[in-house]
Amino acid sequence: MAQKTFTVVGGGPVGALLAILLARHGYRVGLYEGRPDSRVTSIYQGRSINIALSDRGWHSLAQIGIGPDAREQAIPMYHRAIHEADGELSSIPYGKEGQAIWSVSRGGINEQLLDIAETEANVTTYFEHRLVDVDFNTARAVFTTGGGEELAVDADYLFGADGANSKVRRLAHDLPRFSYSQTYMPQSYIELNIPANPDGSHRLEKNALHIWPRKDFMLIALPNPDGTFTCTLFMNHAGDPSFESLQDRGDVERFFNDNFGDAMEHLENPVDTFISKTASPLFLVQVFPWSFNRKVGLIGDAAHAIVPFYGQGMNCGFEDCAELNRQIEAHDHDWDSIFPAYENARKPNGDAIAELSKRNFIEMSDLSGDKSFQLRKKIEAKFSEAYPELWTPLYSMVTFSPEVPYAEALRVGDEQKQVMDRVMRMPHIESDWDEQYVMDRLHELASATFGGRQ
Amino acid sequence: MAQKTFTVVGGGPVGALLAILLARHGYRVGLYEGRPDSRVTSIYQGRSINIALSDRGWHSLAQIGIGPDAREQAIPMYHRAIHEADGELSSIPYGKEGQAIWSVSRGGINEQLLDIAETEANVTTYFEHRLVDVDFNTARAVFTTGGGEELAVDADYLFGADGANSKVRRLAHDLPRFSYSQTYMPQSYIELNIPANPDGSHRLEKNALHIWPRKDFMLIALPNPDGTFTCTLFMNHAGDPSFESLQDRGDVERFFNDNFGDAMEHLENPVDTFISKTASPLFLVQVFPWSFNRKVGLIGDAAHAIVPFYGQGMNCGFEDCAELNRQIEAHDHDWDSIFPAYENARKPNGDAIAELSKRNFIEMSDLSGDKSFQLRKKIEAKFSEAYPELWTPLYSMVTFSPEVPYAEALRVGDEQKQVMDRVMRMPHIESDWDEQYVMDRLHELASATFGGRQ
Repeated sequence: MAQKTFTVVGGGPVGALLAILLARHGYRVGLYEGRPDSRVTSIYQGRSINIALSDRGWHSLAQIGIGPDAREQAIPMYHRAIHEADGELSSIPYGKEGQAIWSVSRGGINEQLLDIAETEANVTTYFEHRLVDVDFNTARAVFTTGGGEELAVDADYLFGADGANSKVRRLAHDLPRFSYSQTYMPQSYIELNIPANPDGSHRLEKNALHIWPRKDFMLIALPNPDGTFTCTLFMNHAGDPSFESLQDRGDVERFFNDNFGDAMEHLENPVDTFISKTASPLFLVQVFPWSFNRKVGLIGDAAHAIVPFYGQGMNCGFEDCAELNRQIEAHDHDWDSIFPAYENARKPNGDAIAELSKRNFIEMSDLSGDKSFQLRKKIEAKFSEAYPELWTPLYSMVTFSPEVPYAEALRVGDEQKQVMDRVMRMPHIESDWDEQYVMDRLHELASATFGGRQ
Repeated sequence: MAQKTFTVVGGGPVGALLAILLARHGYRVGLYEGRPDSRVTSIYQGRSINIALSDRGWHSLAQIGIGPDAREQAIPMYHRAIHEADGELSSIPYGKEGQAIWSVSRGGINEQLLDIAETEANVTTYFEHRLVDVDFNTARAVFTTGGGEELAVDADYLFGADGANSKVRRLAHDLPRFSYSQTYMPQSYIELNIPANPDGSHRLEKNALHIWPRKDFMLIALPNPDGTFTCTLFMNHAGDPSFESLQDRGDVERFFNDNFGDAMEHLENPVDTFISKTASPLFLVQVFPWSFNRKVGLIGDAAHAIVPFYGQGMNCGFEDCAELNRQIEAHDHDWDSIFPAYENARKPNGDAIAELSKRNFIEMSDLSGDKSFQLRKKIEAKFSEAYPELWTPLYSMVTFSPEVPYAEALRVGDEQKQVMDRVMRMPHIESDWDEQYVMDRLHELASATFGGRQ
């Protein structure tokens, strides 16, 4: 039997990982990226500068045989560093002692995965090949090259790993019975920068994700290995304050000084940057099916673009790849079975992390405001430590428990919320939360809900 | 000031009504339809043969000044005629004595509204003009004519009234911050026909909507003035039974005989028709915003395609027109204000009727199966008659209460459901439902929920 061939559209981290896993299963893979090769041009044009990876991402990489080398350039962030409006600093750990989420350069991990892909004899990479059309019956793709030529590429199968704005997905809009949604969030964002100290060290605490939570908007900062921080300002597109309302230079200066006073000595030209940059929109994409005619599939952001507030976008894309890897083995290369098994396994989890990522904006941006919420987290953390078999906090399930699918995390988290709602209605909870009787009551409620299950 | 101009894309019932109301406000309107003029060709190519209109639709037409003439060709249906699998027939009224929904020929009302539009000096109609492109900044539209020419049309404003598959809406997909979703239902449908008796009379009871509810699928029949019935078979696209699974002629025959035995003597070649026709998909469309750059708007199915199970699609489109009519007056022709006021007023109602229409498939298709559901309806009807100020059944709010917006009907209906859930959990409710103590308990619960509100 002739070697089967795949076209992978999109040479981002998910596309590169997909090419690797397909090649390792013996397929011949053409990996097509519209942008130039950032390893040659030294200009990375991906849609964001850095991202968070967590256990889920590392676990998926390991399943596909990508070793821990990728972690060398990553910076562990053990807690949230909360910057109050008055400059006061506090800290909320992400999980238990030693648990961290990892700040990763998107360009860095992308290039590492491309390097690995190119060591695979079965992978050929093509840059500056922009997708123009797909024949969903035959998996034939048409690209325009950097030189302006049109090129038709035949393969047995094709995957769209071409990100949130996936051209493959948009071409599928007119296929029969294809359900799709694209939903904009009220918030948009711009990226700002905090440079390194002259000696290359970080100006803020290195091993933390910094948050300036201001309820309707927030600034966050993630550390980079070169001593800089990549900062992101999330704020409403319209209303007050918003990217639309803040046009006047004086207003922008006042906005930054009033809200991010302690960051102003570090940020590199925030006012100029704010005024000169166009804010990028945030949107979610949900579609079904994720495959067409057993010939063409979608993976990663192309199948389920989410918002960045849970730091799970790339983790989820890598999990898609790990799931596909499992299904190729389970169904012994029978793609008539692999495509439906893959999409049915992943769709509920894609939907769940979309919902969780949406909700987490409120959680992050209100971290310092809602004292009752803080108390709730403290009680949960204490209870989880005492009874780990009964309770893993939602954030930990999503971030540190790759064995718990997103859909289950969402469902259990909602049940936990109902239990905690009842605890928080106990009289004197604010003063007595550390008393044994509160733990006993929570144990009673949690046992009734989760006993013998979790 | 020069007379302002509108391009209306789509000459269906909503487009024609929109053209009339704009013309009556003094605008010059070009009404463009892609299909030929059915009044000339005698072939109507709209997407369904007949539809239901209810008080909401008539009320909206009246607000725009369309008199009761349109009702002359409509057939009132006072109740559901339920055909059990064993041939037994029962009846469930739609509302109170004398309340009806109306079976209307889509082509007929369309042609009536086109006739009225053409009596307006300000309206010019163009058929066989297929939309190719819209400039969302200038409201310029490009059409191809029946003769194959390209034609650019300038106007001050443009409305897409071009139905569920709206080209205007699809062209808007790439506009910034446009949220859209298109969701397929598991069911598809085909239309069948019951001819008239030789003397032109109806073979089944004329003033009823006939339903053969079979849980996972159903057949319905609506009367036409010429003595025929238009029947629609709704069934899953895939699974068993489904349009996909029923391919073999013998299987199809058995399916019809087993399930629609009492209809078989009336249906015109149902088996041939089933085998030769391709089932049409059912889908919902939800988008926001409904207007772009204060130049281009969406209306009717183009803004909110729904499924037909509540019989509200055209009613909702006519309500859009009535709302726009109100906003033109309220904002004195200031379209910078009219567009946002119109979309903000209508969007929650479009979403609500979408949700209600989805839910109603279960309600209709399970009419004979779920005895507890029937009992619930009986108790509600009895209570509503005794305490009309406390309780209007959901179906009546949606169908017979144009003063209640869809969004309010949905919300109140959900509250009613919670109250009725508690009533249905009362011991001995099956035997005692007609006892005074049940009414008293319901009165107590309803007063606590709705007292002083409804």
